[in-house]
Amino acid sequence: MQITANQAHLKSWVEVPAHSDFPIQNLPFGVVSECSSPTQKFVAVRIGDHVLNLAAMAEYGYFDDLVFSQQDFQQDYLNPMMKHGKMAVRALRNRISELLLDINNSFRLQQEQHVALIPVSAVETHMPVQIGDYTDFYSSKEHATNVGMMFRDPANALLPNWLWIPVGYHGRASSVIASGQDVYRPKGQIKPDDNADPIYAPSRQIDFELEMGFITFDGKPLGQQITTAEAEDHIFGLCLFNDWSARDIQKWEYVPLGPFLAKNFASSMSCWIVTLDALQPFATATPAQHPEVLSYLKFEGNKSYDIQLEVAIEIPQHPEKIVSKSNFKYMYWNMAQQLAHHTVNGCNIRCGDLMGSGTISGPTPDSYGSMLELAWKGTQPIQMPDGSERRFIQDHDTVIMRGYCENNGIKIGFGEVKSKLLPSL
Amino acid sequence: MQITANQAHLKSWVEVPAHSDFPIQNLPFGVVSECSSPTQKFVAVRIGDHVLNLAAMAEYGYFDDLVFSQQDFQQDYLNPMMKHGKMAVRALRNRISELLLDINNSFRLQQEQHVALIPVSAVETHMPVQIGDYTDFYSSKEHATNVGMMFRDPANALLPNWLWIPVGYHGRASSVIASGQDVYRPKGQIKPDDNADPIYAPSRQIDFELEMGFITFDGKPLGQQITTAEAEDHIFGLCLFNDWSARDIQKWEYVPLGPFLAKNFASSMSCWIVTLDALQPFATATPAQHPEVLSYLKFEGNKSYDIQLEVAIEIPQHPEKIVSKSNFKYMYWNMAQQLAHHTVNGCNIRCGDLMGSGTISGPTPDSYGSMLELAWKGTQPIQMPDGSERRFIQDHDTVIMRGYCENNGIKIGFGEVKSKLLPSL
Repeated sequence: MQITANQAHLKSWVEVPAHSDFPIQNLPFGVVSECSSPTQKFVAVRIGDHVLNLAAMAEYGYFDDLVFSQQDFQQDYLNPMMKHGKMAVRALRNRISELLLDINNSFRLQQEQHVALIPVSAVETHMPVQIGDYTDFYSSKEHATNVGMMFRDPANALLPNWLWIPVGYHGRASSVIASGQDVYRPKGQIKPDDNADPIYAPSRQIDFELEMGFITFDGKPLGQQITTAEAEDHIFGLCLFNDWSARDIQKWEYVPLGPFLAKNFASSMSCWIVTLDALQPFATATPAQHPEVLSYLKFEGNKSYDIQLEVAIEIPQHPEKIVSKSNFKYMYWNMAQQLAHHTVNGCNIRCGDLMGSGTISGPTPDSYGSMLELAWKGTQPIQMPDGSERRFIQDHDTVIMRGYCENNGIKIGFGEVKSKLLPSL
Repeated sequence: MQITANQAHLKSWVEVPAHSDFPIQNLPFGVVSECSSPTQKFVAVRIGDHVLNLAAMAEYGYFDDLVFSQQDFQQDYLNPMMKHGKMAVRALRNRISELLLDINNSFRLQQEQHVALIPVSAVETHMPVQIGDYTDFYSSKEHATNVGMMFRDPANALLPNWLWIPVGYHGRASSVIASGQDVYRPKGQIKPDDNADPIYAPSRQIDFELEMGFITFDGKPLGQQITTAEAEDHIFGLCLFNDWSARDIQKWEYVPLGPFLAKNFASSMSCWIVTLDALQPFATATPAQHPEVLSYLKFEGNKSYDIQLEVAIEIPQHPEKIVSKSNFKYMYWNMAQQLAHHTVNGCNIRCGDLMGSGTISGPTPDSYGSMLELAWKGTQPIQMPDGSERRFIQDHDTVIMRGYCENNGIKIGFGEVKSKLLPSL
């Protein structure tokens, strides 16, 4: 039984607090361990303020007629579960929906419930996915335009290829970290404007980038393409993604081969992967695309998603300050187009790849997705609760990103990605 | 006992053909399976025209006093073996050297020899390493200058950052394939010069790039740097690397975030990883670097390697044509500098990462490492044995790269990386 946000009347017997990101209509997947045995990780589904241990559920036999084994869930990552593909994971999530539904007592009344259902306060969350390759796109027209205006030609802010290509580049998988893990300010080469030569120093311009990421199922063998019509069959789910950036390192290094050390010191992702199935009620139209895209980028139906996003900065001993409110639906290129483009040359996608959207900037200055844009290259600093100003992120600042869809009072949320910047080691 | 090419008089009891790439002084590592059971892969060392099955050797007890278990070798990839680190792998290779030395009968006279030592004709070679992240550098001054002269300003061919930074970018790990696997001509967006708009078509400008790759041991945790002095402790060995490129796709897509689909349709590597230990006798000085590099890029000693390289193109029913002869020692930036730069911002390196050198072009036109340079942007086509000309690689052409060091008649060779281009699927 597939339960979506369109069935707002359905409830779970598990108590779900009002306005929770995680009602029975969501059921995102993650990897956790009990605080009492932190190295023993397992796959879990989140509901309200509880997590459901899928390894235990498999052991109790609740998935016996599905393709999964208990071993698929007694894992450090979601990958072995995801290896079974879209239809299998959908059947699994539907089974969990049924078991948690308030009219169903088959699991509720078992003693097993007290073992498999664990308060979220008693677990630690971990990196949910072992990422094979990480690709980052650059698919917000507003962001690309803002950056073009600041650093290139304001009259021709978008580069000639931008309206034709869902521009993307390869990122570093090893330094993608889970929400909660601190980030160290990177050192590197920077070339201050008034210096003839570059210097070696800690970056002075650490920025966040508000993004979403999607996680793939297996794709096709090398040499074959995934069409826009097929793309969503290869997408498991989405997460929040903070693509930490060092603007001064980026400026000096990025020509001609793109950003490298400016990005690969850390990228932070949220820990609960919200399935594309849970997001379907929030599918919406992609912004109009002119000029008309090339044939392999054409698509039918609603392939964008209406996901409300916000970014906050928290400084010690003060309440957080919300610095941006944006929406995933602003993206010019949708995920189906990104995946079709990524594979148009035969490039192979594997189970567990991560695709970042690129910075999600909206049309208004309060919806921009980076400090670079929000403070407009330092000319419009942001006021903080302690009276200080921010042009970029300072040591001991914590950056928090949140996201959710909402329909008839039902929230399909992502939780948060939260990480603190520490001084260079 | 460490046997190097400086001990040219030492020989193995295994017959090694004259001029073989694989005397006892080499002993590179790879992953093979017997043709009779192609899915049962194991770790092997190559000697002459034989491979030594390390899983069998472990089972017979020859490594009992080392840290390895039989399971480390009964694997699809070298990674579990490499996980034990530089000192452990060195001890293993030294043990194998001793067992294969002609004065040593401890293994030679055992029946086991006939099981563990297999003719190379009876095995298939496979991808030796499960690559975590793949980074490609751009470290040949001659190559960067040639490309700058062709596409940018001949008077200022090198970009301002090039002499300061070992420029690199992230590549795609999923599409790195083993020598012998065919490559399909990629389709994508190209914008012919006389077109106002881009078109969707198979690439018309498929090129090779002559590179070497190095494979890493584990590095340090996120946030910590690897110095130039420490770098070689984190390098397992080297391979030949053909970084297939689609020049027309690259030209249209690469601004501002770098090459993407122009590269990630395939990159081919040779199957035997030659250890840095085997290459030590060929360590040589790095070219002089002006301006003086920043502190974290300074290094002591010989960190470049004198490895002779050649590229041949083979067309059906004709002998191959050698189109380039180059040398790894021409690289402006050495591997220690590349690794120090890659981690200067705290980026973490993992066991099994692949680092490409970038195209290795020498100082003379016959030593350039790509068709783009050899045929100088199509103006000086290469004559083929059948009377045809080549500006780029054509369907059914096979590109072969070879490399070796030589000293007192002892060759430390890499075998070859050989792959055929097929038409688009």
